[in-house]
Amino acid sequence: MISVLSVASCSNFRFLSVRTIKLTLAYDGTNFAGWQIQAAGRTVQGVLEAALARVAGEAIRVAASGRTDSGVHALGQGVSFEYAGPLPADDLARAINAYLPEDAAVTDAADAPPGFHARRSAARKRYRYRIYDGPVRAVFERSFVWQCRQRLCEQAMARAAAALVGTHDFASFQTAGSPRESTVRTVYEIAVRRGRAGEGDEVVIEVEADGFLYNMVRGIVGTLVEVGRGAAPEELPAAALAARDRRAAGPNAPAAGLCLLHVTYSDDLI
Amino acid sequence: MISVLSVASCSNFRFLSVRTIKLTLAYDGTNFAGWQIQAAGRTVQGVLEAALARVAGEAIRVAASGRTDSGVHALGQGVSFEYAGPLPADDLARAINAYLPEDAAVTDAADAPPGFHARRSAARKRYRYRIYDGPVRAVFERSFVWQCRQRLCEQAMARAAAALVGTHDFASFQTAGSPRESTVRTVYEIAVRRGRAGEGDEVVIEVEADGFLYNMVRGIVGTLVEVGRGAAPEELPAAALAARDRRAAGPNAPAAGLCLLHVTYSDDLI
Repeated sequence: MISVLSVASCSNFRFLSVRTIKLTLAYDGTNFAGWQIQAAGRTVQGVLEAALARVAGEAIRVAASGRTDSGVHALGQGVSFEYAGPLPADDLARAINAYLPEDAAVTDAADAPPGFHARRSAARKRYRYRIYDGPVRAVFERSFVWQCRQRLCEQAMARAAAALVGTHDFASFQTAGSPRESTVRTVYEIAVRRGRAGEGDEVVIEVEADGFLYNMVRGIVGTLVEVGRGAAPEELPAAALAARDRRAAGPNAPAAGLCLLHVTYSDDLI
Repeated sequence: MISVLSVASCSNFRFLSVRTIKLTLAYDGTNFAGWQIQAAGRTVQGVLEAALARVAGEAIRVAASGRTDSGVHALGQGVSFEYAGPLPADDLARAINAYLPEDAAVTDAADAPPGFHARRSAARKRYRYRIYDGPVRAVFERSFVWQCRQRLCEQAMARAAAALVGTHDFASFQTAGSPRESTVRTVYEIAVRRGRAGEGDEVVIEVEADGFLYNMVRGIVGTLVEVGRGAAPEELPAAALAARDRRAAGPNAPAAGLCLLHVTYSDDLI
């Protein structure tokens, strides 16, 4: 009996105590080939799983709220995984950070309810896009902004963006080759403002939705910039929505300006 | 006579119309081996002179207000050179920018009085040093801050810094191997504050003086951080000044946090 008990309290203990951990992850996407592990290239998932393997002593697969492309940043990427080790969440975060490279960091860690999944449980995501439109190039912020040569009219962009808020078919704002069951999404807010206090050489666009099609934010931003630089009328986003044709919208904005700000996990959806 | 006039108005024109140009230069020092041209390594002076040579069609030597070390940034480095070409200063700046890499940019250009020299004519220089002391590493600002593990007391640092303002012998704050005729300098201001509005995970130190010894700002900052983290009393800077011995001050702060903000050129000194 003793040996059976011993097995149960050692080997099997790990199966009994598996926990679901939720991390919040920040990364500078500049030197990553995007989120997802791939055959070649340094990825965020790759460095995170490598750090986690050193902490946990075994390979652990992690899930994110969604993939980010090469060059796209995150302040609040949501990540989840199953963990059978003994560390409390806070200690786990510190231990992972000790093995992460300088361009990625866990900013928060917590135990999540069983069944929580960083992608499936996500209720809303919020992205920020930064555009620099000053007269001299942005030397220091160059990895975090799209540099536009023309001065943008942020008021026209804000008026044009209003047509995209609500529940719509965003087929015109998705990059081809990424079929989803539905191209309908609900955009809760698109905020367009200049700088921190309505001034300066930067236009900031924040978009919050219940989900995003592939390259949807970059398609929206590229379309709004067409309006902002006076190359298209303010009705362009509405017309593009109605067309349900990628060619009706503006070009995709570059990756560098994009940052995944925050993922909202609703208690109802956990 | 016609041929002589022709020579005078073409070949000799360039000698007759040599102008002194003053540039203001911004650069991200991360990927530069400092300001000064050297046998190996990418330097700010090197990329600027290469761009200028393409614009002017001839090699032109430039002077800066002072050298910056590898990893040190500039928002307002002062540069001067003699220019015999036809371009107005504004067009010259645009042309140089077209040939500069993305981590350097001319932000201003003007004709200066004859005899103006970016180093000899400098009356004051102002540096900024940024220290990050938050709980999680600074993923996005990592090239522009010194990351301290301990929370700093900026009030203690500000009180300690007051002893350095004025005309003093700063021998204790200069890195050895850089003899100058005099180690006396006048510091006009040392401003220590937390963040933009007195909060956040960043302490910013700005130092303005009539000149700086080699590594003087980094020595001052390293000394103030000893006070801020509670490892030394607030009297340390005053005691270090009096000692006139490098070992009496704190260690040099790392290069990445340092930025040359502004060079003041007094009309009297031009």
